[in-house]
Amino acid sequence: VQRGWQVVIVTQTGARPLIEAVLERVAARGAFPLLRMGFDWPFHRFWVKHAPEDLLTQLPSIDAFERENCDAIVTIEGPSNTRQGSDLPAERFALWREALRPYSRRVFEHELAWVVSQHPTPALAQEAGMTLAQFEDFFYGSVLIDWDALEAEMEQIAARFDAGKSVRIVGDETDLTLNLEGRNGRVSTAKTNLPSGEVFYSPLETSAEGVITFTEYPACYAGHQVGGVRLRFEGGVVVEASAASDEGFLLTTLDTDEGARRLGEFGIGCNPGIRTHTRNTLFDEKMDGTIHLALGQSYTDLGGTNESAIHWDIVKDLRNGGRIELDGEVVQENGAWKL
Amino acid sequence: VQRGWQVVIVTQTGARPLIEAVLERVAARGAFPLLRMGFDWPFHRFWVKHAPEDLLTQLPSIDAFERENCDAIVTIEGPSNTRQGSDLPAERFALWREALRPYSRRVFEHELAWVVSQHPTPALAQEAGMTLAQFEDFFYGSVLIDWDALEAEMEQIAARFDAGKSVRIVGDETDLTLNLEGRNGRVSTAKTNLPSGEVFYSPLETSAEGVITFTEYPACYAGHQVGGVRLRFEGGVVVEASAASDEGFLLTTLDTDEGARRLGEFGIGCNPGIRTHTRNTLFDEKMDGTIHLALGQSYTDLGGTNESAIHWDIVKDLRNGGRIELDGEVVQENGAWKL
Repeated sequence: VQRGWQVVIVTQTGARPLIEAVLERVAARGAFPLLRMGFDWPFHRFWVKHAPEDLLTQLPSIDAFERENCDAIVTIEGPSNTRQGSDLPAERFALWREALRPYSRRVFEHELAWVVSQHPTPALAQEAGMTLAQFEDFFYGSVLIDWDALEAEMEQIAARFDAGKSVRIVGDETDLTLNLEGRNGRVSTAKTNLPSGEVFYSPLETSAEGVITFTEYPACYAGHQVGGVRLRFEGGVVVEASAASDEGFLLTTLDTDEGARRLGEFGIGCNPGIRTHTRNTLFDEKMDGTIHLALGQSYTDLGGTNESAIHWDIVKDLRNGGRIELDGEVVQENGAWKL
Repeated sequence: VQRGWQVVIVTQTGARPLIEAVLERVAARGAFPLLRMGFDWPFHRFWVKHAPEDLLTQLPSIDAFERENCDAIVTIEGPSNTRQGSDLPAERFALWREALRPYSRRVFEHELAWVVSQHPTPALAQEAGMTLAQFEDFFYGSVLIDWDALEAEMEQIAARFDAGKSVRIVGDETDLTLNLEGRNGRVSTAKTNLPSGEVFYSPLETSAEGVITFTEYPACYAGHQVGGVRLRFEGGVVVEASAASDEGFLLTTLDTDEGARRLGEFGIGCNPGIRTHTRNTLFDEKMDGTIHLALGQSYTDLGGTNESAIHWDIVKDLRNGGRIELDGEVVQENGAWKL
């Protein structure tokens, strides 16, 4: 954060101690903090729920000006109830995301500085099945680690996948092939996500073939938790989808737009502090021994061309009998690297 | 609120039920709500406290754009602690108010729609010396009244003062003369303040002569409560000032700028639901049987020419032996009208 910057802070009231520490430090650096605090996610849920439908795809000039002119966005999630927002009709939410799309480009293409983090709240602890004290231990155990050492390890993993082409993911009810040819990965360090710790790619948009079943954990998105998601891909497109619970939300979300049925991301979790799924994507997608796929928007700066109003990360655990093959060679088995 | 409007909602977390009702209704009308919520007043206190001093008089472009382009401002005070902000150095606060001055003109001159209200919180009840239930009764008893009937009464009072010139306020340690010649008053109805119920003027800037002592109640401003304020005016200017407590804050505030020593407002409280001082200016200044004077910024649309970064309303109770004379005639005595 530099002097003169305009720093938008998107947050929720549960994160108060961290919000106030950030406000103080941003101001002390001579950067102007613009606090955008709601009680729960998402910030615009009253608008999404109650606005006339024909206005949902429009962004008011004040909001647009802010998104075009801010120098940094600090997102600090601190929900009091993780299910808030789950009552928003997916169709209306998609219209609103459409309004935001021209502006999210600045974030995806790193035209501005940004970081996403959380503050441990009772609601997040509850979602994780932990006491607040347990969750705080888990939280700081994944955030306060030796980032330089982890970065070096992740660079090795990325180098190997950068040089490879075909990725095969095998696991419980899962056999899926992707192609990364010509695509470089990104090592996620503690600069944009806290916790961080993943290596991720935008795979070739037409390459996904086969089946993946997320038997271990629910797929969490927009306040929903969809159990037992099963996706079958042909030529990069989801041609069959089912779920053990909340299947309607899965199917509606896949119909958001054309890009919602293609992959925007293949990610590999590498954070050794995260061994437990907490129904909290920011953490779950970094879990060591897992991979995740994101439906929807790809990373244009990683060569991705898929466009969508959604970006839904879903985590697959490979620690119990799963493996990753790269160009026919097993590079990870039961969550352990064989590089 | 009209379709297409951009409605800024400035508020604090304690007002949650009212905030959410407003967000829903604004959105349902097709007006875009822009929530600017902090934990406590003032919204920018971290900036005022910690920013480099040379930046304090500047407004960042995003904030300026919002203030120039919003169609309405809804302020809903809902503090969790009424003393927050009282630690802000008055000099730094004055610099920040300087930055806001070009934009507050839109509010003072009614270029946009605005309303100021509150939501009854434990902190406001505590300040009033009441339980929350007692304060809620008091609160709604002053807000949910017959506004049409009160407006008719206030119109009579305003007509009388509009036609008059010299106002003399006599009371405990008080004998002060003002001139309203050529100035019209405004009847405050429930459109911009809730509770409402006052008739107010911007008196001639050079007219105040004499002494007023606010013996009954503290003068509340910026989180401070200054006891026993005594002001002596000559030619419209405060030439002597003292206080029984927190005198330093009074003197510093009077030195904010040239206009801070002149009167911007003479107001007459008319709300029959407000019989008790609650250290809450929005209510206190409407108390039936009281008058108030504001140091600082005047109402340009009422003919006022005094400019200042401050506007500090201070309430004087006239119900116990006080009186108001208009051109030599007693028009109110012991708080009762003799019109």
